[in-house]
Amino acid sequence: MYGYASTKDDLRSRLRKIEGQVRGLQRMVDEDKYCIDILTQVNSVTAALRAVGMGLLDDHVRHCVAESIATGEGDEKIEELMAAVGRFAGR
Amino acid sequence: MYGYASTKDDLRSRLRKIEGQVRGLQRMVDEDKYCIDILTQVNSVTAALRAVGMGLLDDHVRHCVAESIATGEGDEKIEELMAAVGRFAGR
Amino acid sequence: MYGYASTKDDLRSRLRKIEGQVRGLQRMVDEDKYCIDILTQVNSVTAALRAVGMGLLDDHVRHCVAESIATGEGDEKIEELMAAVGRFAGR
Amino acid sequence: MYGYASTKDDLRSRLRKIEGQVRGLQRMVDEDKYCIDILTQVNSVTAALRAVGMGLLDDHVRHCVAESIATGEGDEKIEELMAAVGRFAGR
Repeated sequence: MYGYASTKDDLRSRLRKIEGQVRGLQRMVDEDKYCIDILTQVNSVTAALRAVGMGLLDDHVRHCVAESIATGEGDEKIEELMAAVGRFAGR
Repeated sequence: MYGYASTKDDLRSRLRKIEGQVRGLQRMVDEDKYCIDILTQVNSVTAALRAVGMGLLDDHVRHCVAESIATGEGDEKIEELMAAVGRFAGR
Repeated sequence: MYGYASTKDDLRSRLRKIEGQVRGLQRMVDEDKYCIDILTQVNSVTAALRAVGMGLLDDHVRHCVAESIATGEGDEKIEELMAAVGRFAGR
Repeated sequence: MYGYASTKDDLRSRLRKIEGQVRGLQRMVDEDKYCIDILTQVNSVTAALRAVGMGLLDDHVRHCVAESIATGEGDEKIEELMAAVGRFAGR
């Protein structure tokens, strides 16, 4: 059971919504919408994906990482977590 | 005709690929994949979307903005462009 | 004369303020301030630097790039600009 | 004793170097250096600051957060940490 199990339905519905937004972007291209308007929508989909990523990180820390620390086996998990935070934060 | 007209097929195929990646994320959640692996994939979709955004900005400057400057009507386009760059760069 | 000439005093005073903020960070470390409080301050200095970067980009487009486009020599400048926007936006 | 105590000298020397880089930026403005070159240097200072921030986060998790979880009092620390990660990652 991973950290996101409790929020699996929420995750699924966010991802379905993002999938719809990506289809919306394709429609905007098909209909020759103005570049800046498409870009605004790209930013909005990116923000939605980042929020999903942030939620995954959050659940991961509260469950997987916290549990492994509580049982004295946190070092490897913390290593992995901080590498993931670094990649997520873009550096 | 917008700046991205010349690259419309490329844009469409990138967005279709991104849509597939988002469906892949939903599958990962369904199959209870490890949080960090899902996050890695979220980062990769985000990067693909950012690349689409960067391409849109690029085409926009090379066409819409350059044309309006060449015809002496650049001010408003530059204003709009820099606001878009600021939002895209996240500040 | 570069694009930022008109805003040189403003740039200088922003950078002096940022220098002071970085010294403030050193003091926080010396005084053993709480990690999260130092991090909050790091974010604030980063944001101030990003605003300086955004201002430089803005001036550059309004002057250097716009002029070179108006005189029919914009291609190289646009190439250089978009590479700079890509690095600034972090991709 | 905070998480960064063990790396205090390293932190101090990084911040002193960053202070020097910010003074370097002021010199570049004084000497009318080319906007794009100044921007490149701004990006480099920003990256150095982000690395300091990432180091602070890392130390914080390995010490403050891990300890409070190990003693069964992690909830508040995790809450605070994830808010800090969100702000650091820019959302």
